Amino acid sequence: MTDGPSKSHGRLSVSLSRQPSDLMAKPPALKGAWAARIITLFPEAFPGVLGASLTGRALKDGLWQLDTIDLRTFGEGRHRQVDDTPAGGGAGMVLRADIVDQALRQAQRGAPEDRTAWPVVYLSPRGTPFTQATARAWAGAQGVTLLCGRFEGIDQRVLDEHAIQEISLGDFVLTGGEIAAQAMLDATVRLLPGVLGNDASADEESFSDGLLEAPHYTRPATWRGRDIPEVLTSGHHGRIAAWRQDQAEALTAARRPDLWAAYLAKKGRSPA
Amino acid sequence: MTDGPSKSHGRLSVSLSRQPSDLMAKPPALKGAWAARIITLFPEAFPGVLGASLTGRALKDGLWQLDTIDLRTFGEGRHRQVDDTPAGGGAGMVLRADIVDQALRQAQRGAPEDRTAWPVVYLSPRGTPFTQATARAWAGAQGVTLLCGRFEGIDQRVLDEHAIQEISLGDFVLTGGEIAAQAMLDATVRLLPGVLGNDASADEESFSDGLLEAPHYTRPATWRGRDIPEVLTSGHHGRIAAWRQDQAEALTAARRPDLWAAYLAKKGRSPA
Repeated sequence: MTDGPSKSHGRLSVSLSRQPSDLMAKPPALKGAWAARIITLFPEAFPGVLGASLTGRALKDGLWQLDTIDLRTFGEGRHRQVDDTPAGGGAGMVLRADIVDQALRQAQRGAPEDRTAWPVVYLSPRGTPFTQATARAWAGAQGVTLLCGRFEGIDQRVLDEHAIQEISLGDFVLTGGEIAAQAMLDATVRLLPGVLGNDASADEESFSDGLLEAPHYTRPATWRGRDIPEVLTSGHHGRIAAWRQDQAEALTAARRPDLWAAYLAKKGRSPA
Repeated sequence: MTDGPSKSHGRLSVSLSRQPSDLMAKPPALKGAWAARIITLFPEAFPGVLGASLTGRALKDGLWQLDTIDLRTFGEGRHRQVDDTPAGGGAGMVLRADIVDQALRQAQRGAPEDRTAWPVVYLSPRGTPFTQATARAWAGAQGVTLLCGRFEGIDQRVLDEHAIQEISLGDFVLTGGEIAAQAMLDATVRLLPGVLGNDASADEESFSDGLLEAPHYTRPATWRGRDIPEVLTSGHHGRIAAWRQDQAEALTAARRPDLWAAYLAKKGRSPA
């Protein structure tokens, strides 16, 4: 679907030609904007949903940039094979260390070596769970490189060699890392300066203070015999804020004892 | 991007015309195949990544089906407005109960009322976390209806009225539910009969027994001075299985104390 080993999206994007010499070319220096580089066998899956709505507008406006590196380009032989059978037997195929290594080297050209300034991540259910704190840390970096797996997995040696961090979208198994990459990028990009129309939105939502959000209501005032809670139409800002806080605490305690315990610990309160 | 209130993907798909009378039409009876119905303001985001690879082939082969219901169609006025300002003030906009209600009624036509046979879910960071167990339960149902939020949230009354379950992709905030829906559908669809080429794959992977997966290796035998662990090339199946079990246990204990504790409890063992 793509013509070259890497493909850029966004205002500052360039198209690389399919000449083999481009494999050695440094990715264009796209200064300033936060950058995501995705190593994938499905470059055509990007930008996908990220091209719509807020994240899509931000991409067009150059608030962030997206480059895909097509792993297939580094494959060997007529079929550009990138995987092989697992050592020790078993189902599925394993992406080869030497192939992934080449794609990683291409992806990292021009990126800082400091992994805080530029996280390099393999998307894997074996990794540390992705949270809002991860999104905030990534948004504070200059960019990220995300390695999307397929098949059974990736040869462990290339993960060790490059000291790649494993991050998990959650405790479930996907057919590949592409959807996980899109979810993590969506959560990160919306935190970049200028992306959300109203800066207040990001501060009031779930997880910003360790609690789930209070319920929302809007017109009509009565619907199917159900009224909007009276306090919300009182115009009394103090009472409204207190009600929302109470609701958020009650909801978190009921639905997520884990988050509730962490919240109490942070506040120096003990569970009731 | 879509012409009508709902749009189908897959072998058995039909295109509805844009006649208003179709708003009242029952979705076509697509017998047998597992079905996903998505209520969204961005129907063009589907099938997205789900149209590629394993899930895409399964969609074309009619192993599952995907219908989008365009929430915008149910909006009011010249701009088909679907949201309004939050009661009590605050940032963002809230999807209206009466609008979402209409979309839900359309989505549920022909679906069983038993929520075990057909879960009806709002994708929200306030919900129960989605896990491999959720994917298995959904794969065992006849289909699911997924309601994708945008903006600040959805009027709580429509969630209460329809007893909608809230499910969260993880502890982070997305710009909308569309990516979450795709992730959950990917995890679910790959568990449907016939979707994975090799049935063994789903049994050996992370979470299938409550442990993270052991590391993978493939050729070359030596790469950058790093060898494949000797046991994996021994040809001794019993030793290989034992090594993988040890690695999976060690990895889970090191990376995910929460999963490790649950695993030990299930096995009736106490932590070391």
